[in-house]
Amino acid sequence: MTKILAISGSLRAGSHNTGLLRAAARQAPAEVEFELYDRLSDLPPFNQDAEDAPGEAIEDMRARIQGADAVLIATPEYNGSIPGVLKNLVDWASRPVGKGAPLYGKPVLVIGASVTDYGAVWAQDHLRKALGIAGARVTDFELPVARAGEKFDEFGELQHEETAAQIDEAVAKLVDHHRSLGQAVRS
Amino acid sequence: MTKILAISGSLRAGSHNTGLLRAAARQAPAEVEFELYDRLSDLPPFNQDAEDAPGEAIEDMRARIQGADAVLIATPEYNGSIPGVLKNLVDWASRPVGKGAPLYGKPVLVIGASVTDYGAVWAQDHLRKALGIAGARVTDFELPVARAGEKFDEFGELQHEETAAQIDEAVAKLVDHHRSLGQAVRS
Repeated sequence: MTKILAISGSLRAGSHNTGLLRAAARQAPAEVEFELYDRLSDLPPFNQDAEDAPGEAIEDMRARIQGADAVLIATPEYNGSIPGVLKNLVDWASRPVGKGAPLYGKPVLVIGASVTDYGAVWAQDHLRKALGIAGARVTDFELPVARAGEKFDEFGELQHEETAAQIDEAVAKLVDHHRSLGQAVRS
Repeated sequence: MTKILAISGSLRAGSHNTGLLRAAARQAPAEVEFELYDRLSDLPPFNQDAEDAPGEAIEDMRARIQGADAVLIATPEYNGSIPGVLKNLVDWASRPVGKGAPLYGKPVLVIGASVTDYGAVWAQDHLRKALGIAGARVTDFELPVARAGEKFDEFGELQHEETAAQIDEAVAKLVDHHRSLGQAVRS
């Protein structure tokens, strides 16, 4: 069994990115367990002075990442980069440096959706770099879901076969990545 | 008189970036008025669903940017990019698109400090790009304050002549930029 924590960078109720993660969970093979992180809006703004006593929401987020084998992040793009709210999670999860930061060594795969022709590629690129600097093992994969407005139904559920297949490929890549890192540790 | 709103991307009490802005305010010529924005931690996480009724803290931030002739931002670098909390301000201040977003058309200059040898250059670069996409008129200037730990006293006040002179240059550039844009509008 592989446990994946899925994190959406959008707080919008009808978010396409959250919809991608719901699709990933629905489609996942039986040996993959999904948990959808739903407390992004509870995280306080990162303050280095609070690093040692960051409060319950941060402790819970850290524990969920630590308890997962791998992390799948779906990001929208705001002003050509990562949403501030999602970057704030990365900033907290990259600390404390050298003393148990939950992202350190964690396999993470990034996907993203936008209503434009580009599919949040800049946000995905910046996010992969930030995760890498935080010590995460970033899976070499990109999934830009462009023109997302045409690919979801009125309930926010994915209705696009090609994208659904790409999500399956992404999840398979992430599971493989986690397994290969486990092999490396055991060998 | 030119009114500059100064925004620090760090919430840490002893922040070098906030210290740079205090130095800028202290040193500024008489015809420049500084206001230090001090409510970054009050801003809720950006949620597009709340765009039309974002609450008092966002309305106040928007009014302060709108009321200033120019904006000076000092950013630290977290995980190779903009702090999430600061990007969250940019995300709010870039909305509503086409309907009075406070950053649109506003002259903005970016500086940054870090304790490393690099002076937050990646964060400054990402921030300038995000501000440009938001429609701000980004002043062509970079001020990377490296090894900031050696340049401030125990009270967090700048004690480094070369950096102080560079801050004066940055403020003069920003004031000139604002004036030149004003000329363009009037001509």
